[in-house]
Amino acid sequence: MSKSPIRFTVSATDGFARTGLLETRRGVIETPVFMPVGTAGTVKGTRFEELEAADLDARIILGNTYHLWLRPGIETIRAVGGLHRFIGWERAMLTDSGGFQVWSLGELRRISEAGTEFRSHIDGSLRFLSPEVSMEVQHALGSDVVMVFDECAPGEAAADEARRSMELTARWAKRSREAFDKLQDVATPGDLLLDQNKVGGTLAVPVVQGGLSGKQALFGIIQGATHLDLRKESLARTTEIGFDGYALGGLSVGEEKEVMWEVVGEVAPLLPVDRPRYLMGVGTPEDLIEGITSGIDMFDCVLPTRNGRNGQAFTSLGKLNIKNARWTRDLRPLDESCSCAVCLRHTRAYLRHLYLSGEMLGSILLTHHNLAFFLDTMRRVRQSIRSGQFTQFRREFTERLSTARDADD
Amino acid sequence: MSKSPIRFTVSATDGFARTGLLETRRGVIETPVFMPVGTAGTVKGTRFEELEAADLDARIILGNTYHLWLRPGIETIRAVGGLHRFIGWERAMLTDSGGFQVWSLGELRRISEAGTEFRSHIDGSLRFLSPEVSMEVQHALGSDVVMVFDECAPGEAAADEARRSMELTARWAKRSREAFDKLQDVATPGDLLLDQNKVGGTLAVPVVQGGLSGKQALFGIIQGATHLDLRKESLARTTEIGFDGYALGGLSVGEEKEVMWEVVGEVAPLLPVDRPRYLMGVGTPEDLIEGITSGIDMFDCVLPTRNGRNGQAFTSLGKLNIKNARWTRDLRPLDESCSCAVCLRHTRAYLRHLYLSGEMLGSILLTHHNLAFFLDTMRRVRQSIRSGQFTQFRREFTERLSTARDADD
Repeated sequence: MSKSPIRFTVSATDGFARTGLLETRRGVIETPVFMPVGTAGTVKGTRFEELEAADLDARIILGNTYHLWLRPGIETIRAVGGLHRFIGWERAMLTDSGGFQVWSLGELRRISEAGTEFRSHIDGSLRFLSPEVSMEVQHALGSDVVMVFDECAPGEAAADEARRSMELTARWAKRSREAFDKLQDVATPGDLLLDQNKVGGTLAVPVVQGGLSGKQALFGIIQGATHLDLRKESLARTTEIGFDGYALGGLSVGEEKEVMWEVVGEVAPLLPVDRPRYLMGVGTPEDLIEGITSGIDMFDCVLPTRNGRNGQAFTSLGKLNIKNARWTRDLRPLDESCSCAVCLRHTRAYLRHLYLSGEMLGSILLTHHNLAFFLDTMRRVRQSIRSGQFTQFRREFTERLSTARDADD
Repeated sequence: MSKSPIRFTVSATDGFARTGLLETRRGVIETPVFMPVGTAGTVKGTRFEELEAADLDARIILGNTYHLWLRPGIETIRAVGGLHRFIGWERAMLTDSGGFQVWSLGELRRISEAGTEFRSHIDGSLRFLSPEVSMEVQHALGSDVVMVFDECAPGEAAADEARRSMELTARWAKRSREAFDKLQDVATPGDLLLDQNKVGGTLAVPVVQGGLSGKQALFGIIQGATHLDLRKESLARTTEIGFDGYALGGLSVGEEKEVMWEVVGEVAPLLPVDRPRYLMGVGTPEDLIEGITSGIDMFDCVLPTRNGRNGQAFTSLGKLNIKNARWTRDLRPLDESCSCAVCLRHTRAYLRHLYLSGEMLGSILLTHHNLAFFLDTMRRVRQSIRSGQFTQFRREFTERLSTARDADD
């Protein structure tokens, strides 16, 4: 049996919910896992030392093919030895394929069988992204998990549009797989530097003892909008090609939330049990719990970082708007049951002052707390699954949120 | 002999340059010292954990009366237990009196014998700042070193204007002293909470063994623009009142640099040898060395933080503009002889990418390095004075800078 780039082991289940270990060439990741988003090579406002610190301890972060391809550009990334070396991060990284980003450009892009032509949002230059280009870029980035280049359909896409999109995604998945496999014969700049040219910081996560191939992993993406038959067909066509993990894409893109959960609830349990399942771009803490209930293992979302910059904190009692005048002299931390570095040190009164004064530190601290809250929630979820108490945890977690409705109230 | 709020001991000298210990109620500060500026209760873009970390180890930071009085306002600061508690910082803090800031407002302010009337830059409301109000505000802030409320004259002020301003400053100094002394009979909110209501973080600096009064210290400010006779008169009138330390104000405000150094060189050595000497608002690393040569012990300046946000790094080879295209693929740290957390981890290539992408992390990391460079330079200065090699250190430091001219070249 040939070596795999990753190894995934489920260690406990509770209904469809499951917890396990995802071993990568850059350390072990406990699942379910939330991946902070580092679009342009930085988790906005967050130092890598903080991501590594015990209160966050992010084992894997996201990078974005579209953004990094446009800036600084792939020749630069190659020249400096891959994305990890470029940004100074030694733990695992997953890169999105750029499919979603070019799709989001709307009128600025034109999709054909070959790929997607679009204008750069930075300099207006004409660019072309395809399965082959995306694989080449992600190979140069040297990410540990590569995503296939897919096409997304709007959340409310009718059956014919969703079918066309799903079928294109299936053909692109095949081309992605082929291009990816050829590239894996060539070491990436990141591979070359792995263990050899240690950058600052510490890995500080359990290192895989061996048995992995040291190559990049490739995940397939299931599309089909809200149409269950199309989703199931997409699943069959994607698993037939065969990938190291499977993602649900094209969700949380305009459809009703209950429709999304119907799709996830139906499709996730059908994904191969021995491969990690990734729900792309989702969501709130409640959404994460809901996804886990259906058997999802991996999540990413900009909410903790973006909302942090906009003055919104996620807490165990719901969202908290730091601009609210009622916090003016409030000496409590953002969340009284949180033990992140920000909650141990700073008060709502101070964070409100920073935010109203337009001080950068306000965004920095709110982002930190939000990431800590998301990551800690995942830790508690894993523990509850291990102890067979996930259902109870879920009920208490959501009841607490729905009773409080909002920490501002 | 009654207890003092601070104790200052010179431990070694080399010419006029001197190194010593400034003991405050919130820890011991080695001098010469550079104080990072935290205008609105935050050293912009910098977490307090970083200020405490070994590569920065800032023992004292600045706060600003003007800014904090306007926002969040003194009632809020009082209600939350003083400035230290408000921002979550247990080490020493010095607050400027607001004199310089209202003077900087130009046409927005009107100065009379009683004080300065001005319009808030935040909401346009009419405000009045005087020696008495400034002392009251600084008392409520609970800073460890309070500055008298002074009046500044333009760098190029003629003798009559400079005299009028210096005399007003002398009268205000007396009023400041009197108002301050009365207030010291009342415990500040900060005092009340000292040692009793520990906030997050660790003091992690040697704690004074005793013998201090636990009260705030008050520093006088010498004015007189570039007129040596007025400076000497100001010095006499200020020392006659008697303060815990003495500052040179009204420098680096438009006068020629060599004129400034003539004033510092003449006046600093005349200041009481047993009291700390503070050169306000100065300056570049070369300026700090120059000031130390004349016997200055304390400095503050926005350069490391402000220039860091604008993409400029201070290095041992001069200033470095991170936007420069030549750093696109440069794997070197900002300063190859720097061992701050940023230089140990990140490359010029990455920092340039962050800056060009408008990413907050670029400002955060450049600010950190700049503060580390300033603070480390002070450490090396102190060491050189202790070993009697300050003159040599100074020559090598400035030669290195002037040979390289600029790290960009």
